[in-house]
Amino acid sequence: MNILIIGGGGVVGQKLAQSLAAEGRLRGRPITRLTLADINDPPLVDASFPVSAARCDIADAQSVAQVITEDTDVIYLLAAIVSAHAEEDFDAGMAINMFGTYHVLERCRALGTTPVLVFTSSIAIYGGDIPDPLGDHSYPNPQTSYGGQKAVGEILINDYSRKGFVDGRAFRLPTISIRPGKPNRAASGFMSSILREPLNGQTAVCPVEPDFLHYYLSPRRCVENLVKAANLDAADLGGNRVMQMPGRTWSISQLIDAMTAVVGDGPAKLIKWEAQPDIKRIVSGWKWDIHAERAEALGLKSDESFEDNVRYYLEDDKPAV
Amino acid sequence: MNILIIGGGGVVGQKLAQSLAAEGRLRGRPITRLTLADINDPPLVDASFPVSAARCDIADAQSVAQVITEDTDVIYLLAAIVSAHAEEDFDAGMAINMFGTYHVLERCRALGTTPVLVFTSSIAIYGGDIPDPLGDHSYPNPQTSYGGQKAVGEILINDYSRKGFVDGRAFRLPTISIRPGKPNRAASGFMSSILREPLNGQTAVCPVEPDFLHYYLSPRRCVENLVKAANLDAADLGGNRVMQMPGRTWSISQLIDAMTAVVGDGPAKLIKWEAQPDIKRIVSGWKWDIHAERAEALGLKSDESFEDNVRYYLEDDKPAV
Repeated sequence: MNILIIGGGGVVGQKLAQSLAAEGRLRGRPITRLTLADINDPPLVDASFPVSAARCDIADAQSVAQVITEDTDVIYLLAAIVSAHAEEDFDAGMAINMFGTYHVLERCRALGTTPVLVFTSSIAIYGGDIPDPLGDHSYPNPQTSYGGQKAVGEILINDYSRKGFVDGRAFRLPTISIRPGKPNRAASGFMSSILREPLNGQTAVCPVEPDFLHYYLSPRRCVENLVKAANLDAADLGGNRVMQMPGRTWSISQLIDAMTAVVGDGPAKLIKWEAQPDIKRIVSGWKWDIHAERAEALGLKSDESFEDNVRYYLEDDKPAV
Repeated sequence: MNILIIGGGGVVGQKLAQSLAAEGRLRGRPITRLTLADINDPPLVDASFPVSAARCDIADAQSVAQVITEDTDVIYLLAAIVSAHAEEDFDAGMAINMFGTYHVLERCRALGTTPVLVFTSSIAIYGGDIPDPLGDHSYPNPQTSYGGQKAVGEILINDYSRKGFVDGRAFRLPTISIRPGKPNRAASGFMSSILREPLNGQTAVCPVEPDFLHYYLSPRRCVENLVKAANLDAADLGGNRVMQMPGRTWSISQLIDAMTAVVGDGPAKLIKWEAQPDIKRIVSGWKWDIHAERAEALGLKSDESFEDNVRYYLEDDKPAV
């Protein structure tokens, strides 16, 4: 198995690479090579098989052609311009999120090798005046350009798969929390930082009310699901290659209570509550009554509790003091 | 009102041009100019205002920039590579249906004039294993590349409208019948030809069973709806600019009985019944339990009876002997 992770330098890409390195196998066969492609050189991971880094700008079809080759068996397409960033810079969002996906699909089509393609869509495709509950077969009504570009990606993945150009599978990721590292430009950034920064002994700002509900998944469980996603047989997916990845809905209060249950009440006191209208405008268009029936039936899983998410952060990601 | 019809040489484009010429007004103001753009020079129509023809290939952004100008008030984007054609020639479908729509939207964005854009989507965006009934807020699950490309267009129309780049409104057209003229490369072509050819005294082939159900609209009523579509206020459309255009569901038998009711039983005897697996494979993925609640609430209409569709053909389109 020759595996390519596009967006291999990101939080999920790096954790996925570590997981593949630990596992050594995918789709029932040994991994023979792993390439981490990103706009900058991504950090490598230790593995029993060769791991290399590649610079790739998916907005550029030529650059895509250099990293997807005839012997690429599995492609993870994780690279994206995230929500608030794509809202500010419309061209960047279109170039990466829509045309980037198109370039990857076209490269696969040109090769004629029908690689497995795992695409990360987002719950940002839901929104507006659509009745709850939401899930695999809900009308995509995104309220951001990021969500719109991901919705386009879903449609293209399905059509290129139907035509046999790729063996695609697309999953709408819940918001990943607790996301380690620096904040990115996602409007959802606070949903990690209000926990991560206090757990690291720093203050954080919460821009929404304590009863704000949202749909979450831990990075650890997300990566487990992405590995399962590649392992699925095309026959199990049927004609629609797009589905919701399992997550769970919690309020901000529940996140904070879970943190307090695991580490005591000190960190919660480091959260400052300050309304941020720009962020609230974006995230209030997002949906939380979301269900992942198809993916759950295929063996993908949500977290058991948000206490688990806190523990995963402490075990996997908390920087040494 | 300076109006541009892209696809102005097509059946619907020509009838729309005739209707606008007869009406002389749109969006409450006199029409000052009408441009019919198409890949070939479209026939002109007589009007009290200037009417001109323009060659335009929407696959080419430069060509689009030549026909959409600062003083364009209303754009009808009707041009498309139809279903069976896009299924055979994937590149042509992507170039016209997806990139053509993108080029029109990008040109509007570059101008900064927020023109009204009426886009014709299709019931081909529905399909597969999605529960009936279908309508405005159903999950798009197209079973053809044509349907996929139209579904992408819908998402882009919504996002470009949300951003204020265009004042878009997109309508999923029912199958237009009785469509005059020569057959095109739509898989739905027989749904007109089994009536049109016999009404013209010629034989025709029906490739499906008499109980095959489908969702139809006459060309005359379609054009009336497209005029209303441009006249709608943006405020009435809300955040989702995409909706089903009203049609009605009839079986093949009902179409033929309607023809017989209007003109007697001679023409029905000119229909030959011959299964065509390629056509049947495409059209059996199409849906017919379709409802157009939003558009009906906004005043758009379906036909009263299929007898009307037959009469409209005789009045508007039947070639003189």
